[in-house]
Amino acid sequence: MKLLGRQTWKFGEQVFLNSTGTAVGPMESEGPLGAMFDVKYNELHCNEKNWELAERRLMEDSITSCLNKAKLSNEDINFFLAGDLLNQVVTANYVARANEIPFLGVFGACSTSMESLAVGAALVDGGYANRVVAAVSSHNATAERQFRYPTEYGGQKPDTATFTVTGAGAALVSREPSSIKITSATIGKVKDFGIKDPFDMGSAMAPAAADTIAAHLKETGNDPDYYDLIVTGDLSAVGSPIVKMLLSEQGVDISKNHRDCGLMMYRPDQEVFAGGSGCACSAVVTYGHLVKELQSGNLTRILVVATGALLNPTMMQQKESIPTIAHGVVLESTKEVLK
Amino acid sequence: MKLLGRQTWKFGEQVFLNSTGTAVGPMESEGPLGAMFDVKYNELHCNEKNWELAERRLMEDSITSCLNKAKLSNEDINFFLAGDLLNQVVTANYVARANEIPFLGVFGACSTSMESLAVGAALVDGGYANRVVAAVSSHNATAERQFRYPTEYGGQKPDTATFTVTGAGAALVSREPSSIKITSATIGKVKDFGIKDPFDMGSAMAPAAADTIAAHLKETGNDPDYYDLIVTGDLSAVGSPIVKMLLSEQGVDISKNHRDCGLMMYRPDQEVFAGGSGCACSAVVTYGHLVKELQSGNLTRILVVATGALLNPTMMQQKESIPTIAHGVVLESTKEVLK
Repeated sequence: MKLLGRQTWKFGEQVFLNSTGTAVGPMESEGPLGAMFDVKYNELHCNEKNWELAERRLMEDSITSCLNKAKLSNEDINFFLAGDLLNQVVTANYVARANEIPFLGVFGACSTSMESLAVGAALVDGGYANRVVAAVSSHNATAERQFRYPTEYGGQKPDTATFTVTGAGAALVSREPSSIKITSATIGKVKDFGIKDPFDMGSAMAPAAADTIAAHLKETGNDPDYYDLIVTGDLSAVGSPIVKMLLSEQGVDISKNHRDCGLMMYRPDQEVFAGGSGCACSAVVTYGHLVKELQSGNLTRILVVATGALLNPTMMQQKESIPTIAHGVVLESTKEVLK
Repeated sequence: MKLLGRQTWKFGEQVFLNSTGTAVGPMESEGPLGAMFDVKYNELHCNEKNWELAERRLMEDSITSCLNKAKLSNEDINFFLAGDLLNQVVTANYVARANEIPFLGVFGACSTSMESLAVGAALVDGGYANRVVAAVSSHNATAERQFRYPTEYGGQKPDTATFTVTGAGAALVSREPSSIKITSATIGKVKDFGIKDPFDMGSAMAPAAADTIAAHLKETGNDPDYYDLIVTGDLSAVGSPIVKMLLSEQGVDISKNHRDCGLMMYRPDQEVFAGGSGCACSAVVTYGHLVKELQSGNLTRILVVATGALLNPTMMQQKESIPTIAHGVVLESTKEVLK
């Protein structure tokens, strides 16, 4: 059976993560995972003339890096599933124009990383694609310009704010055996506990993460400790305690093996408020760092739950609260197949 | 084989369009297809206090209407695939918050109608869902506010401009037999012939439509006249001759059976410039009118190619041209199964 319960996909033994690519900006390069990323820029423009082009460059770099490792070119890929935070997912649109791969635009804010990977894996598992590339990006300056205030305004932020990761991550999925298998995915519901503060996304997204993790464990029948790690996307220092508390209230204890990509991205002395966020946060941590831990045998099985705040400035002006969502994907080391 | 060539899906005999729902605004109600729509509003606010809420109401109405016809409720649906033109696909996000169906946000501008239907059909065909609902919306006033100038500004428009359809369409897809079968889909590539004028989307999108139609016919091995109709989404009076010309240059003649939803939406005396556009254009024409023609036997087999201009105002200011995409879905009357 490929559908477990209502919202979880169980894949066969034939869906693999073949390679990944990552590209990041200066703050991310200087963080604790800096050495793990493929392409690094030492300034936010990434050799481009504006920030939007810089973000495009990052997504393109991540895909080039991913395909180079697999010795494949754009023509070898059936579908490109991608999205980003910019209006009209425009980074992905222009990257798709350049790479000419048949394109499926997806959007789940910062959860787009695992949405694109989950849908891509389903298309491969079901025989609707031989190979797909899933990619996302975010850029600190493009996100600030669009969602908050112009950076030049110099507005103060509270400690609950998160810092959008400048970067991009890409993953190649196919039926060709590799050292990492994609074994299941849980598609989330939209949750909204009434948070209206765009500077506190961690609190807004924690209920969505808790709901998806609880649904995943229930529908797969797994205990939390079945996974070496349960990794959330960008709940940060504010949302991480909340997701653990919400699950604990349901009798689910993830306190021992929970990690948050937003807290893994930067050193404690880097000025990022409550931690990292953005589509690229979960993508570069997963595709740059966690996959290497799976390949080396340090990790055997992880559940990555990317969290997304479906924030829209017009809705905030209309006094709406922030709907949020989270999608989870399970990655397992295949052990027997080494790359 | 489920994958034909690079970008076409061939579904088994088990994917059906079980019911559809449509909701429209005043201009659409007064058009030639007015009698075909389920829910009609005689003013753009649709009894809501702002246009964004009106668009949300339209999408919710289309889904309610669709599920009522099938005697199903939200809990019976595995996944809700939806998108719209508003930034951060926010209509779909808030509708997903209300209906609590596990949600996959998709975006392909006006092609989102067929992107959501195609991916939904693949998930059902592959066994990843028992039932999905695919839905899109657009609203003339929300689109004007976001993409062009405030309506109050009274800016003049050229005759090549299109008029965003106010409406929403929803479709229920499952393996339960019905009078309409979804038999294949072709996912498009992003095309860009250098058009930079947001008031001439028809010219911008015609190359994407031609590319998807040509790929579909090549990969399925079908001639154009295999289909009773090849229907494009919103190429309008400007783009329709261009798509026919581009295909004719490749030796493909669709002149006899080509129709465009943008030209079917309104009467010639309605003031809509070159015709209708928006996600809802192809959705309400397909889900409100064409499905009835398939059910009644007036049509047997149609290819619906929804076209999307991946327009972004920031990119226009940065002197970029407009990338476009088109996705096609084949609907066939099952004849033997009558509802």
